[in-house]
Amino acid sequence: MPPRWTLDPDRLFSAEPSQRAAARELYALVRDLPIVSPHGHVDPALLADPSARFGSPADLFVLPDHYVCRLLHSRGVPMEDLGIATRDGSPHERDHRRIWQRFADHFYVFRSTPSGLWLSDVLISVFGVTERLDGNTAQRIYDHLAERLERPEFSPRALYERFNIRVLCTTDGAADSLEHHRRLRSEGRLDVRPTFRPDAVVHPGTPGFRDHIERLGAAAGIEITTYADYIRALEERRATFKALGATATDHGAVTPHAERLGAAEAERIFSHALRGEAGANDAARFSAHMLMEMARMSVEDGLVMQLHAGSLRNHHGALLARFGPDRGADIPVATEWTRNLRPLLEAYGDDPRFQLLLFTLDESTYGRELAPLAGYYPAVLLGPPWWFFDSPNGMVRFLDQVTETAGLYNTAGFTDDTRAFCSIPARHDVWRRVSSNWLAGLVVTGRLDAEEAAELAPECAVGLAERAYRLGAGDRST
Amino acid sequence: MPPRWTLDPDRLFSAEPSQRAAARELYALVRDLPIVSPHGHVDPALLADPSARFGSPADLFVLPDHYVCRLLHSRGVPMEDLGIATRDGSPHERDHRRIWQRFADHFYVFRSTPSGLWLSDVLISVFGVTERLDGNTAQRIYDHLAERLERPEFSPRALYERFNIRVLCTTDGAADSLEHHRRLRSEGRLDVRPTFRPDAVVHPGTPGFRDHIERLGAAAGIEITTYADYIRALEERRATFKALGATATDHGAVTPHAERLGAAEAERIFSHALRGEAGANDAARFSAHMLMEMARMSVEDGLVMQLHAGSLRNHHGALLARFGPDRGADIPVATEWTRNLRPLLEAYGDDPRFQLLLFTLDESTYGRELAPLAGYYPAVLLGPPWWFFDSPNGMVRFLDQVTETAGLYNTAGFTDDTRAFCSIPARHDVWRRVSSNWLAGLVVTGRLDAEEAAELAPECAVGLAERAYRLGAGDRST
Amino acid sequence: MPPRWTLDPDRLFSAEPSQRAAARELYALVRDLPIVSPHGHVDPALLADPSARFGSPADLFVLPDHYVCRLLHSRGVPMEDLGIATRDGSPHERDHRRIWQRFADHFYVFRSTPSGLWLSDVLISVFGVTERLDGNTAQRIYDHLAERLERPEFSPRALYERFNIRVLCTTDGAADSLEHHRRLRSEGRLDVRPTFRPDAVVHPGTPGFRDHIERLGAAAGIEITTYADYIRALEERRATFKALGATATDHGAVTPHAERLGAAEAERIFSHALRGEAGANDAARFSAHMLMEMARMSVEDGLVMQLHAGSLRNHHGALLARFGPDRGADIPVATEWTRNLRPLLEAYGDDPRFQLLLFTLDESTYGRELAPLAGYYPAVLLGPPWWFFDSPNGMVRFLDQVTETAGLYNTAGFTDDTRAFCSIPARHDVWRRVSSNWLAGLVVTGRLDAEEAAELAPECAVGLAERAYRLGAGDRST
Repeated sequence: MPPRWTLDPDRLFSAEPSQRAAARELYALVRDLPIVSPHGHVDPALLADPSARFGSPADLFVLPDHYVCRLLHSRGVPMEDLGIATRDGSPHERDHRRIWQRFADHFYVFRSTPSGLWLSDVLISVFGVTERLDGNTAQRIYDHLAERLERPEFSPRALYERFNIRVLCTTDGAADSLEHHRRLRSEGRLDVRPTFRPDAVVHPGTPGFRDHIERLGAAAGIEITTYADYIRALEERRATFKALGATATDHGAVTPHAERLGAAEAERIFSHALRGEAGANDAARFSAHMLMEMARMSVEDGLVMQLHAGSLRNHHGALLARFGPDRGADIPVATEWTRNLRPLLEAYGDDPRFQLLLFTLDESTYGRELAPLAGYYPAVLLGPPWWFFDSPNGMVRFLDQVTETAGLYNTAGFTDDTRAFCSIPARHDVWRRVSSNWLAGLVVTGRLDAEEAAELAPECAVGLAERAYRLGAGDRST
Repeated sequence: MPPRWTLDPDRLFSAEPSQRAAARELYALVRDLPIVSPHGHVDPALLADPSARFGSPADLFVLPDHYVCRLLHSRGVPMEDLGIATRDGSPHERDHRRIWQRFADHFYVFRSTPSGLWLSDVLISVFGVTERLDGNTAQRIYDHLAERLERPEFSPRALYERFNIRVLCTTDGAADSLEHHRRLRSEGRLDVRPTFRPDAVVHPGTPGFRDHIERLGAAAGIEITTYADYIRALEERRATFKALGATATDHGAVTPHAERLGAAEAERIFSHALRGEAGANDAARFSAHMLMEMARMSVEDGLVMQLHAGSLRNHHGALLARFGPDRGADIPVATEWTRNLRPLLEAYGDDPRFQLLLFTLDESTYGRELAPLAGYYPAVLLGPPWWFFDSPNGMVRFLDQVTETAGLYNTAGFTDDTRAFCSIPARHDVWRRVSSNWLAGLVVTGRLDAEEAAELAPECAVGLAERAYRLGAGDRST
Repeated sequence: MPPRWTLDPDRLFSAEPSQRAAARELYALVRDLPIVSPHGHVDPALLADPSARFGSPADLFVLPDHYVCRLLHSRGVPMEDLGIATRDGSPHERDHRRIWQRFADHFYVFRSTPSGLWLSDVLISVFGVTERLDGNTAQRIYDHLAERLERPEFSPRALYERFNIRVLCTTDGAADSLEHHRRLRSEGRLDVRPTFRPDAVVHPGTPGFRDHIERLGAAAGIEITTYADYIRALEERRATFKALGATATDHGAVTPHAERLGAAEAERIFSHALRGEAGANDAARFSAHMLMEMARMSVEDGLVMQLHAGSLRNHHGALLARFGPDRGADIPVATEWTRNLRPLLEAYGDDPRFQLLLFTLDESTYGRELAPLAGYYPAVLLGPPWWFFDSPNGMVRFLDQVTETAGLYNTAGFTDDTRAFCSIPARHDVWRRVSSNWLAGLVVTGRLDAEEAAELAPECAVGLAERAYRLGAGDRST
């Protein structure tokens, strides 16, 4: 009989006793604070529909999680065998018990990864699993989870309340109907808010750009034939998002280049783009121009602007063709912020109405570019360690490299950035533990007083994110 | 009654008892050693004139310190409200008590920053402040400081001796009259030395380049009409600096590119530059050529060459126009050393007369480029962590990433690089604590013997810098 | 009488007691495991010839070790004085006692470097030196070493067995006769294997490219007049290497660019290259094409492909002209993997027959590019910290930055990469200590169970490398 599978109550705290003691005290202040989740990818339908369920254990833990799929794939497990549907209809595994077995057989590869931490925490803390997941326990644990997942207290809404989530922001395309958000809003029970994500309609390189623009126009009730129509439609949609509680927009770019085009130039490229005739260079210039425009609109409507840069999407063409995007083949590239963002920051960087959150996948820019920018421009705040760096070591590198130059008050707290709803508490818990332990390290090395640390721990857990995203008590009146 | 504001006597030492004990022992060896300050920006007038004073608390702690201004600005405090004079004469705060109040109101934003450490140390150790600085204590502390600042024992000269400064090097433009240095030199009481900084006269892109050249000629007593005159004037000025005790030059560049031009080419670009007609490309090539020339001159006159690269100055054009340079808006960029410096190092890198100190704002080059260069070329030494990286974490990253490849003996010790005279002891103390604790870490992990560490601690504190800058007992005869 | 020179039995373990205790336990599991050395530069003649000896202490420790020469050179010791032969026949030191004395006089500069650790370990553990090496003990230690080096139990073969080496792979040019490997193979006593290194015949830029191609043809028994002959010759040679036990190839490139050329284009550039008429751009495109071809051949013949990128060789032209290559003047440059390797990975990255090991000198790519690539593509494994980063801090940075994203199972264990045969146990011991201590850190912070760590420690020491290089029990049948 193997030992019961448990989590170390002191996990992620320093082994050095004085720091551990200080970390425990700080963590005790924040462990039970409500969760503010200002950026993520949860499907609002899960929460809008009281009858929504998570499906099978494979539906919940394997199929939608590209962190899981990519690592299993890297160890030689074909995506088909994980149940990922093929675009050409060729066969893929449909037996969720066999998918789960493969996942369990390879669960050891998640050792030393944050996914391993999150998955263990969810299985143990949320679902009460007591045996370590492996090939032998796989089916017993599947039974256990399947039974739980049918119970009402394991419905998304029930867990939303059990998780003590105060506010949750989703990410929604510029042309999204927002029907689920309307329902949630009218019901007024859960504080779930949309985030305006216009990537598909601001990068003329995007496949099917014209269709996206048409959908944008339809959603805005504006027939888009000119650049001016297009801008009006974007403004109209932002207003709709804001009316449904949105406080932020989100923008993805390989390169964070910003540069304003003249009106005629913008009009010319836009009309070419609508006809699918914009060259790569014009497309890039238009994207850079729209980054300026989005900043301009944020200054005017007060939506916080998030910019995520540096990910080269769909590195593996064959995978994209066979299974579609978001399967774990997005690979970062070196990113330049200082020169690329200069025109945007010179135009809006010290406007008190503007708030710009920057997220990078290039850690070499933390101390070199991002912290100095955040430490000078009033509008700039640094988003937390993102994606691959949402991990214990990634968080420490971020805090160590950023706060000496930018200060903690120029950071934006934590965002879980996840579509895996059940992992939200686990992800916030890792951040709360790591940030408490990091503050404890400053205390025991005489860099911070205990009282200062006790003030900063709740800021890291909730306060910084609330203010960065304008989700604080004062803001929420809006 | 709040607790007395104090500094932890073990600050910056590991919390792990065995390392802390070893760190204390090493620090005890260096804590009271005289200060060698081979690179900084103190105004020599402060020390040349016995009657000079620091002015008000705001004059001392806020107005001149771009580390302070930039961070307050980043939190939404306008530069005007900090008393920074506008170029167009539009109003700015002139009430130093109100400036101080704003500083104190926001002092909490310096938590976890090196500025926070330095400011606390200066207020407590130099001025005997006993209450933590905040909005409530601001005016009482202002009174306390103002009273002290009027006393003769708080004059710059008195503090120079109280600080136990053995030698202090300033930074002076190539055309500087050096009058204060002449006075200090003739008086022979304090060992204050100039450093030759020719940036304004070697980068044709510099605004007012022609005027700078004219001032250079005037200072050198040479009418500069040809490239040959120009070179002679530079050599003449270097000789004058050297005669007044200078042992080093200092060079700033966005990119450390070095490449020799043919004589005709150099002459052609120089004459165009004098007429303000040099294109950007020619200007860059001339700067690269002058880097070669400066190295050539250093080989001949023995002045140590410092090269600081990677800062994009005045990122925010509007700020520059309104308040002038050095307000905290200089932002680093990625820097390439291996290819850029190759021509210079191939020409002079193993000349025993040549000493080249490299400073970077791109930490990704520590292990990749700088340590391998210093670990091969006899002329190359690595300057300490600079500017944003002059911080406890920055120092550890530097030591960890550089010394395994280059060895400690290819580094140049510490430079405070500051214009804030009163913070000099605090800055050296941080370095002495961090380097002692770092050496202690090598001892307790069996990588260094206690005797070796006891030899290396004073090297880090004083010896390495003395030799790097040729300021040792032997050198000082010159 | 100075204290006996010894090694700390707990060296490289955390000073924190609980982590140290866990590290000791894990290290005890791996300390005495046989050494698997899958990549290095030992001369096979040393092992093929029973009468081979290492020569003098200078022959063994100074002359062949570019880590040692470069650091002494950086402190002002001319290469000639270290006994490095000049190409023009101008004088160089021939007295090995004087070479040794210079080495000993400067031994202190290796403090805090991995070379210092390795050299101390070899002198103490392999040769039983009891006095610390310095200027005073130099000659006594020389006598001691010289006496030992003449004994049969200090012959390379005797040490091979004393070191408990299970398998050792050398690196051999594509045109190498492999005579020593034939002898070792027929004898069947030591498991020494060649590695196919074709750099000289795939980069048309290489000096004497044509001669290298001729030697390749001669070795393959194929007259190479066309591109097709050339490809056949390479395939033939790979088969020969494989027949002699090779399981891997090794490829060096400044930039890891891969791109397939059309047949006609490849033929055209190859024929120009043979006549020495390939331009720099064509040469680079041909190198990129050959990287694709080498991957294609690895898919077909199953040889593991190693790619080492980012070193700019022979930075100092004068040194190259005077002493030849590999004297410590190879300096890294920034390296881009995501875009450069994309064509190769799209073509072969998920082929189960293919295994690609990537080695970098640009640590900023660990978390940004390499870990995400290894964490997605089945074929990609990450080689251990290489060259300048084969050091205690380098190993920790690698493990901390790579494993959270890629997992430990997508790394390739350890390679000593050395030509200094006697340092092999010391280098593996540093890795075994650092990886045990790193795993212990995960245990005491609750990120890994003790049983999991006990499984992973032997993987780090031997298992991961065995599988990455296909040198496991199963593979060795081949």
